[in-house]
Amino acid sequence: MVSAITSRKNYPSKKVMLIRKEKKAIVPCGIPYVFDRLKSVDENIMSDQPLLDNEVDLIIEEVEEIKADERFILLKNGDEIVYEKLILALGSKADIIPIPGADKKGIWLVKKDYDYLKALRESVLKSKKVAIVGGGFIGVEFAEELSRIKELEVSIIEKADHCLNTNFDEEFSQKVEERLKKSGVKIITGKTIKMIGGDEKVEYLEFEDQEKMPVDLIIFSIGAKPNIELAKKSGIEISKEGSIITDEYLRTNLSDIFAVGDCSQSKDFIMDKNISIMLASVAANEGRIAASNLYHLELLKENKGTLGVFSTSICGLTLGVAGLTESRAKEQKIDYITGESEVVNRHPGVLPGAEKIKTKLIFSKSCENLLLGGEVMGPESAGEILNIIALAIQKKASVFDFNTWQIATHPLLTPPPTAYHLIAAAQSALMKINKVKTVE
Amino acid sequence: MVSAITSRKNYPSKKVMLIRKEKKAIVPCGIPYVFDRLKSVDENIMSDQPLLDNEVDLIIEEVEEIKADERFILLKNGDEIVYEKLILALGSKADIIPIPGADKKGIWLVKKDYDYLKALRESVLKSKKVAIVGGGFIGVEFAEELSRIKELEVSIIEKADHCLNTNFDEEFSQKVEERLKKSGVKIITGKTIKMIGGDEKVEYLEFEDQEKMPVDLIIFSIGAKPNIELAKKSGIEISKEGSIITDEYLRTNLSDIFAVGDCSQSKDFIMDKNISIMLASVAANEGRIAASNLYHLELLKENKGTLGVFSTSICGLTLGVAGLTESRAKEQKIDYITGESEVVNRHPGVLPGAEKIKTKLIFSKSCENLLLGGEVMGPESAGEILNIIALAIQKKASVFDFNTWQIATHPLLTPPPTAYHLIAAAQSALMKINKVKTVE
Repeated sequence: MVSAITSRKNYPSKKVMLIRKEKKAIVPCGIPYVFDRLKSVDENIMSDQPLLDNEVDLIIEEVEEIKADERFILLKNGDEIVYEKLILALGSKADIIPIPGADKKGIWLVKKDYDYLKALRESVLKSKKVAIVGGGFIGVEFAEELSRIKELEVSIIEKADHCLNTNFDEEFSQKVEERLKKSGVKIITGKTIKMIGGDEKVEYLEFEDQEKMPVDLIIFSIGAKPNIELAKKSGIEISKEGSIITDEYLRTNLSDIFAVGDCSQSKDFIMDKNISIMLASVAANEGRIAASNLYHLELLKENKGTLGVFSTSICGLTLGVAGLTESRAKEQKIDYITGESEVVNRHPGVLPGAEKIKTKLIFSKSCENLLLGGEVMGPESAGEILNIIALAIQKKASVFDFNTWQIATHPLLTPPPTAYHLIAAAQSALMKINKVKTVE
Repeated sequence: MVSAITSRKNYPSKKVMLIRKEKKAIVPCGIPYVFDRLKSVDENIMSDQPLLDNEVDLIIEEVEEIKADERFILLKNGDEIVYEKLILALGSKADIIPIPGADKKGIWLVKKDYDYLKALRESVLKSKKVAIVGGGFIGVEFAEELSRIKELEVSIIEKADHCLNTNFDEEFSQKVEERLKKSGVKIITGKTIKMIGGDEKVEYLEFEDQEKMPVDLIIFSIGAKPNIELAKKSGIEISKEGSIITDEYLRTNLSDIFAVGDCSQSKDFIMDKNISIMLASVAANEGRIAASNLYHLELLKENKGTLGVFSTSICGLTLGVAGLTESRAKEQKIDYITGESEVVNRHPGVLPGAEKIKTKLIFSKSCENLLLGGEVMGPESAGEILNIIALAIQKKASVFDFNTWQIATHPLLTPPPTAYHLIAAAQSALMKINKVKTVE
């Protein structure tokens, strides 16, 4: 959708067509909320109005193959569509662990499919004990939403030591687990599932340590794999990790064919390696870049590397992370320094609505003290604080930039000007840097 | 406080002393909220704990004179205090219009004084009709807070056409007026007061057009003037506008004397001229810069010019502005282009807590399409969205940077990735730029 609309805006003289197999498109990030907050899957439909408003032609059909040499697309219904430029936004599909019993009834994935989600919702509402396998973003969001359903027992099973382990440092993920537990979610970490038992329908889970756990519905949220079948059979180059290979303008190896979103890989913003981050915001950004560079490359719109910027809201706690965490920095042997702060989003702190905001920033120790990453946790505004961190990383802000950064503070909106979260965190890093200097 | 604490952190071997005449320091930005939300002035005291924690000596006394040649300060009680470095943070005092009757009882200013504010609070709670003269930030914040007091009639009198007229474009200030009116505040704009009538105590206001308005208490919130008496008599250079003159490191003309906050003037971030912005956040930033440069100048901590970044919250609507508005850009004959968006902070927009966010960005048309200013209006998170705009201006972001800016979005926190407020606004500006290009 972003590619289509941006194409129209950038090249108003061109005809733009969107081919999609689904009659109704789902808002992907909204899926966890169809169970309670949205009350139905129908409330989570992405409107086609923006397409109509921007005069994008919409075709509901599946693509059979891309004939790149002859520049046309073959649809399943036999129709052929010629193109000048083609953007592939093939998405990804939910993964499952290939363990015995994984084909039983009552085992579900998180699919972006209207009918499937309707059936999943009905099934969940009829269940008593639901297990969510995988404690990443989707897993914890599902767990919170399902914990709102009366008399439903909800468990998360995560093989790592903590939920959200890949994305957050421990002090942040622990808080999420605390909140989930308070909401009645059972959290099982550090355990691996061996098999799923039951007759036709799932009845229990069995862990590697022989422990059994009764369940009547399992949702797998262990990750996703790029949809590359169409690209592969059409001669588009695929990486050994299984994503479409693109350059910084999102161009594939075939001329005039671009690939964006979950189906394509990208270069990491901070380190020189390829990564595959499957996020709607990354996809939207790639869609904008590809659509801006369709007919002529504009240097300013290249993709400078993908930065992982993730936010979520669990039981009223907002969490966000951009770029490197401390544990990732350690793992990658990066010379870093951290800055931390814990302040209240009101001043004086007794004003109504006061909540703590915790931030942690990671600066490079050797490279001009540039910001490499940040984590934030607190009230709803933490979602936008995270986007400040994301902008600062992308505009190459250093710890010194934070020291002279001019901001607005307000009693009902932010911490006081004397202790604004990100500046306070940067100053705590600066103290360490100055101490290092003095010692030298 | 910021200067003192930052000095200690930067120069841990030095003794730092804070001299202040007030026994209890007030949180300046919290003053409007002492009437209802904070329930008392005592809840709006700035704690001295951070001073104690950082081993800053606190002296409660008034300064008589600075003997700059001999490097000592003379206190009112006769004590002399020697210094190596001196930072003046003298603040400002509320202004009043010199009209007949302005000396009557029942006429108040917004003073940062504990006893005065306690008396004002008691007086307001006993009143029936309060008029607030001046519809700037303090005026509208007072009006909202007082409108929460049962059976109190509250009016704002603003001589310009709209409240917040100096800071916001009309479409933003109109929304504030709408909200205030809904809360029962009477808004009188475009009218000037000629005199204040009554015996000893104020009884009515008379406008230039002879119209009279009965009131029993008046609060003036028409602006403030720098406190410069002490600096003046100590030989420190004052600008013709009446502020202490400082360089980019906040140094005055006298060696080893710095001046920060409301008492000093600064250079505008965008245009080459001196301005006097009296904001706690500006003061805190200047305090940090001065204290970082006391003993040796660090080029990275200079003040690159002061950017006005203002936020407020009126009747549940958060508003923010940074840098140039459209009307200011017009006035200054700057070649600009605007980008606007109006989106909802949830996706899908039917999720609980959905509210509109309106943004307006001003980009330079001639100078690399750099961001020069922005306005935002919406839910509480707009306070941090404003700080994104502020960072973008300071890190010299262009409309193209927004086009490739990588952000996080979440159903419960932000608009969808396809329509994130600031990117959507930048794209609407980009459309205009592309159109201009095509026409050429």
